[in-house]
Amino acid sequence: MIDSTDRLAKVVFQPSGRRGSFPVGTPLLDAARSLGVYVESVCGGRGICGRCQISVSEGTFAKENLVSAADHLDPASEAEIRYATLRTLPADRRLSCQAKISGDLVIDVPTDAQTNRQVVRKRAEAKAIVPDSAISLVKVSISEPDMETPRGDLDRLREAIETASGHDRLAVDPVLLPMVQTTLRKGGWTVTAAIHSDKNSAPTITALWPGEKEAVYGLAVDIGSTTIAAHLCNLQNGRTVSSAGTSNPQIRFGEDLMSRVSYVQMNPSRLPDLTKAVREAVNSLIGKLAGDVGALRSDILDATFVGNPVMHHLFLGIDPVELGGAPFALAASDAMVLAARDLDLELNPGARVYMLPCIAGHVGADAAAATLSEAPHTQEPITLLVDVGTNAEIVLGNKDRLLAASSPTGPAFEGAEISSGQRAAPGAIERIRIDRDTLEPRFKVIGVDAWSDEEGFADTIDSVGVTGICGSGIIEAVAEMYLSGLITEDGVIDGALADRTHRIRQKGRTFSYLIADGDVEISILQTDIRAIQLAKGALYAGVKLLQDKLGTDRLDRIRLAGAFGSYIDPKYAMVLGLIPDCPIDGVSGVGNAAGTGARMALLNRGHRREIEQTVHDIEKIETALEPKFQDHFVNAMALPNKVDPFPHLRAAVELPERKELAQTVQGGGRRRRRRV
Amino acid sequence: MIDSTDRLAKVVFQPSGRRGSFPVGTPLLDAARSLGVYVESVCGGRGICGRCQISVSEGTFAKENLVSAADHLDPASEAEIRYATLRTLPADRRLSCQAKISGDLVIDVPTDAQTNRQVVRKRAEAKAIVPDSAISLVKVSISEPDMETPRGDLDRLREAIETASGHDRLAVDPVLLPMVQTTLRKGGWTVTAAIHSDKNSAPTITALWPGEKEAVYGLAVDIGSTTIAAHLCNLQNGRTVSSAGTSNPQIRFGEDLMSRVSYVQMNPSRLPDLTKAVREAVNSLIGKLAGDVGALRSDILDATFVGNPVMHHLFLGIDPVELGGAPFALAASDAMVLAARDLDLELNPGARVYMLPCIAGHVGADAAAATLSEAPHTQEPITLLVDVGTNAEIVLGNKDRLLAASSPTGPAFEGAEISSGQRAAPGAIERIRIDRDTLEPRFKVIGVDAWSDEEGFADTIDSVGVTGICGSGIIEAVAEMYLSGLITEDGVIDGALADRTHRIRQKGRTFSYLIADGDVEISILQTDIRAIQLAKGALYAGVKLLQDKLGTDRLDRIRLAGAFGSYIDPKYAMVLGLIPDCPIDGVSGVGNAAGTGARMALLNRGHRREIEQTVHDIEKIETALEPKFQDHFVNAMALPNKVDPFPHLRAAVELPERKELAQTVQGGGRRRRRRV
Repeated sequence: MIDSTDRLAKVVFQPSGRRGSFPVGTPLLDAARSLGVYVESVCGGRGICGRCQISVSEGTFAKENLVSAADHLDPASEAEIRYATLRTLPADRRLSCQAKISGDLVIDVPTDAQTNRQVVRKRAEAKAIVPDSAISLVKVSISEPDMETPRGDLDRLREAIETASGHDRLAVDPVLLPMVQTTLRKGGWTVTAAIHSDKNSAPTITALWPGEKEAVYGLAVDIGSTTIAAHLCNLQNGRTVSSAGTSNPQIRFGEDLMSRVSYVQMNPSRLPDLTKAVREAVNSLIGKLAGDVGALRSDILDATFVGNPVMHHLFLGIDPVELGGAPFALAASDAMVLAARDLDLELNPGARVYMLPCIAGHVGADAAAATLSEAPHTQEPITLLVDVGTNAEIVLGNKDRLLAASSPTGPAFEGAEISSGQRAAPGAIERIRIDRDTLEPRFKVIGVDAWSDEEGFADTIDSVGVTGICGSGIIEAVAEMYLSGLITEDGVIDGALADRTHRIRQKGRTFSYLIADGDVEISILQTDIRAIQLAKGALYAGVKLLQDKLGTDRLDRIRLAGAFGSYIDPKYAMVLGLIPDCPIDGVSGVGNAAGTGARMALLNRGHRREIEQTVHDIEKIETALEPKFQDHFVNAMALPNKVDPFPHLRAAVELPERKELAQTVQGGGRRRRRRV
Repeated sequence: MIDSTDRLAKVVFQPSGRRGSFPVGTPLLDAARSLGVYVESVCGGRGICGRCQISVSEGTFAKENLVSAADHLDPASEAEIRYATLRTLPADRRLSCQAKISGDLVIDVPTDAQTNRQVVRKRAEAKAIVPDSAISLVKVSISEPDMETPRGDLDRLREAIETASGHDRLAVDPVLLPMVQTTLRKGGWTVTAAIHSDKNSAPTITALWPGEKEAVYGLAVDIGSTTIAAHLCNLQNGRTVSSAGTSNPQIRFGEDLMSRVSYVQMNPSRLPDLTKAVREAVNSLIGKLAGDVGALRSDILDATFVGNPVMHHLFLGIDPVELGGAPFALAASDAMVLAARDLDLELNPGARVYMLPCIAGHVGADAAAATLSEAPHTQEPITLLVDVGTNAEIVLGNKDRLLAASSPTGPAFEGAEISSGQRAAPGAIERIRIDRDTLEPRFKVIGVDAWSDEEGFADTIDSVGVTGICGSGIIEAVAEMYLSGLITEDGVIDGALADRTHRIRQKGRTFSYLIADGDVEISILQTDIRAIQLAKGALYAGVKLLQDKLGTDRLDRIRLAGAFGSYIDPKYAMVLGLIPDCPIDGVSGVGNAAGTGARMALLNRGHRREIEQTVHDIEKIETALEPKFQDHFVNAMALPNKVDPFPHLRAAVELPERKELAQTVQGGGRRRRRRV
C-alpha cells in the first residue's frame, strides 16, 4: 500500500482560479494559504469559529482536467461534526480547517458574509427566551367593498384587525397605503397583518400579506467596533435560525474608536460615510441571514441593536464628537423605537427597530445587553461583568444594587502597543508556560495543535509560522514570567537572571525575554510589560472603585464578555491582577453576551422593560471623577496587586516571594489618556 | 401737446429678449401678447387672477439703448390697488394687464410659480379661523451635561419639554437625533421645540431650534386635477401669509381624471411618475411660498392636503385603478396623520401632514373641505353645495341631516365636447344675450371690457380675437337661446326660425345658431346643446336624488364651489335647470372653498374633528345604484325641467311658452359612462 502522503491531488480554488497539487491529507485551509487564497479563520483552525467555510463544486472540469466530488474531502472531523450540530452548517459547506484533501477538487470560496460567521457560543444559543415579541400576527377576513358603504378598504381592514386583536385603536404604517388593495384582492379578502406593539410607541399595523402568513423574523445585531454580529430569530417560537458576522467597514476610517471619533472631528462632512458604511454592512448581513433560511427581507419585522456609545451614535447618524472629550455627553441614551426605513435598513418597509439604552458615555448599549444576558440584577451572588476592549465596560453588583463604570485600558490587550503583538490569527502565540528551573518557554500557536515542545510541532509549524503574540498570549507570558521569577511584582525584568538563561538579554537600560527565534524574533520587552501593567491597572482600579462604592470586597462570580474574555485563562488573568480575587471556578467567559442580550430584547418585551429599568437604576460611576482611582491604579500596577491579598488565588497558585530590585518601574503612576 | 398715443416706447421682455415699440398707454400684457411673449392671464385682464405679474428691471441698458424705470409704467389702476391690498402684491411686482406703458422698459417675466398664482377670493381670506393648530412651540433651558449623571442630552431635553408643556410622555422624531447636541450648544442650552399633538397620533417633538423661535408656518394644499393651489399660514396667529398656484403637471399623463386612471391601468410601472410629478409641483410651490415671506422650508411644520379621490390617491402613491370602475373602492378614506418626509415633501424634516378624509369613491377630501368651509352641517338653512367638475360633487342638507353624492357630468361645462368650446382664457366668449325680437346676439369676451355691441369693442377686439366659448358662455348661450325661443324646452333648435334670422343654419339633419363670424366662426350646434343637456341633466338628477332622500324640495341656499361656480350667473344656471329652484339671491359662488377648508383644518384641530365627524355622519348616496336616477335624468334633459315647476325662477324670469317640434331630442335617455 502506498503511503497516502505520497499521493498528490489537484485543487482549484474559485473564484480566484488559483490551483496547486497537495499531498492527500493536507487540510484545505493550509492548501488555500499556501496558494495565497484568502480564507478567513479566527479560531486558529480549531473548527470553532466557522469562518473558513467553503463548498465543493462537483463535476467534471474539462479545462482543469479533473473530476471534483464532495467525497474527495475526508469525512467530517469530530470538531466539524460538533460545529455542524451546534451551528447548523449548511449541507453543502465544510470547514476548510478540518476538511482534509483526499482527491481532486474544485473549491468554491464564498465571498459573502458567510465566511465571516461569528463564534456564537453554545451557552448563548441554549439560553431559553420565552417568546413575547413586539410583533403579533392577526389573520382577518373582510367583506368585499360595496357602493352602499364607500369606506376605504384600509379603514375597514383596520377595524377588523382592531376587533380581532383586541387593540382599541391601531395606527397604520403609511407604507401599507400603496399595497393594501392588491393584497386584499390577492388574498381573496383574507390577509394576515403584523401589529407592532411596544411601550412608548403607538400600536401600529406594520405589514400585510395575502392569506395566511406563517413565519416572521426578527434581527438582533451587536455592532462592535471591529465586528458586527447578527442573529436572525423566528419571532413566533423564539428560535435563532441563523447567525452571521462581518467586519465593521468603519475600520477604514480608523482602527479603534478614538481614531474614528477623531476622523469625524477632522472631517465633519464625512460623518454620513461612517453611518452609511455600518448600515450597508448590516444590510448585507440581513441578505445573508435571510438567504440562509430561504426567507425574504420583507419577512423581517423587528430588530434590536446594541453597541458601545460611539457605535450606537454612528449607526444613528449622530456625530460622536461629544463622546471624545469630557463630559462625554451622549446625544441620546434611553431606549428608542424607530422605523427601520429611517435608518435605511433593508427589512420589511414597515419594520421597527428597538435600540437598547446606553448606560453612560463610555458604557454602552452593549454593556446593557450583556447585563440583561448575565442578569446580575436578578441574583444574590455578587457578579462582576467585564467587557474588555479599548475601554473596559464594568458592571458590578447583585439584585440589591448594581454599579457601572468604564476604565481606559487602551488597546494593549488586543495586541496593540506590544512589540510582537498581533490579533488572534494563525501564527499567533496564544498560550505560554515557563519552566521554573530552566526558565525555558514552551508555547502553543494558533493553527497548530501541538505545543512547541511536543512531537509533531516542528512538522506543522513551518506551514503556519510563528508570527507574533496575541492578547491571551501576552497575558500568560507576563503572568508566567512573574511566576517563574523573571520579573518582580513591580514588573521589572530581572537582568541578573541573564546568568542563568541566554533568553534574558539587555536592551539599552532594560532587559527582554526571548520566547521564539524563528523567522521572527519574539521577545517580551520591558515596555511590553509596562503596557500590560498600565492596561490591567486601569481595569483593576475601575473594578476596585466599584467595589468601594458597593462597600464590600465579596465577589462571587466574574463574567468576562467578548472574544477576549473567551480565550483568556482565568487563573492567569488573576495572577496578573487583571481581575480581582474570586473563587477561580467562579470566573468564566460568556462569549457574545451583548448579542444574547440583543436577542432577549428582540424576542421578549419584558426583557426590554427589564433592561430599561435596570439601566435607569444602575449607579453610574465616572472613574475620572474619583480621587481614589489614582491610588487604586498605582497599587494595581504591581502583580497581582501591591496591597490586595488575593486569598483565593494564593490557595490555588503558589505566588513567588517578594523580590526587590535596585531598578524600579518608571512612570508607573502616570495617568493615561482616556480612550473611548 | 402731443397726443400720448403718438409717442412710442421701447419695451424689452426678459428672459426671452423679445422687443418692440408700443404706443404709450398700451397695457403691458397686450404688448407681451403682440410679441408672442407668454404671460399667463386667466381673469381676462380684469386684475383679479394675479397670474400676469411682472417686474421692471431698472437701470441703463446700453445694449438696448434705453433707460428702464419702474415709473415708466402708469401708476396702479384701481383694480391693481384692490388686488395688491387683498393679495399683498410684492412691492416690485405689477399686474401686466393693468400696467400701461409710459416710457422705455425692460420687463422681467418671472418663470417661477408666482405667475401661476391662483385667484384666492377675498371671502375665503376674510374667514376668521381661531388658531389652535397641531403645532405648539415650547422654549426650555436645560443644564449642561455632567459626568455624574450621564444621561443623553435628548432625554434630559425631552423631560424638560414634557414638564414645560404638560405633556405626559412625548415621542421624539428621530430626525432630531443628529442635531440635538449642536442645537443645544448653539442655543447655550436654551432651545425652542415644536410639539405636534393631534388625535390618533402620539404627541411628538418634531423640531428644534437654538434659542428662541418666533414664527412657524403651515401649508394648506388643494390638489386639483388641473391646478394645485397652496397657502402658507402662520400657525401662531392663523394668518395666511402667502398663496400660490401651479398647473398640475400630471396633465401630461392625461387631461382629465379618467385618462390619468387609464394611463396607470395601461402603464402600471409609471404610477410613481404621476406621484412624483404632483409632489415635485408641491415642493416647488413650497419653495415659492417660503421665499415670498423670507421663511425657510424648515420653518414649515404642518400641512393639510385635500383633493378628489384620484388626486388624493396619486399624491399618496396609491394606484387609483380601483376608482376607475365599480364599486369605486377607495384604498383609504379616513383622515390620516403622516410624516411629510414619507411623502417626499421638502418641509422641516419632522413636519407632519394631515390628510382630510374622503367622503366616497367620487366625493373626495376636496368636497369634505368645501363642506367644512361652508358648514351646512352647523346651520338651519338647507344648503346645496356643488363643486362642478368632470364629476359634480354634491352635498345637500343642514344641521339635522347631510347627504352627499357625485354625478357624472362629464367635461362639457369646462368647454370640452363643445364644438367652439375652450377654457376660460382671453378670447373666450364668457357672457351672451340674445335679442328676443331680432334674435341677434351680443356678447362679452374675456380680455375686452366692452360688450360686442358697445363702443370701443371693435377697437380692442383685434388684439384679443374671439377664439371660442367658455363654460359660463355656453351656459348663457343655451339659456338665452331657450329664453328667446331659438330652442324648445327639449333643447331642439327650431329650424323654422331660419326664416327670421340668417344665424339659424341647417347642418345636415339639424340646425345651428351663429354667434360670431370673425377669423373663427363660433356657432352653437345641436350637438353642443345635447352635450350641455346631458351634463346638466346628470347634475340635476343627482341633486334631485338627494332631495328625494332628504324628503323635501325646500332649498334655502345654493353654494357653487370652484372656478366654474364663481363665473356662472345663478339666473342662467337656473334657467338651464343646472341647479334646482331656489331663491335666486340664495345662490352664490364660493370660490376655492376646498382650499379654505384645508386652511381651517391646518389652523384648528377642532375643525379636523368636525370634518371627521361630519364625513362619518354624512349619508353617502351612490347615484348609480338608485333606480330613480334615470327618471330624474330624463326629466332634467328639458329646460329647465320637464316636471319641476321652478317657482322662484318663474317669479324672476319670464320663461317662454311650451313649444313642441316634430323633431325630438335623440338619445336623451342614454345613461352616460361614469367619469371619475
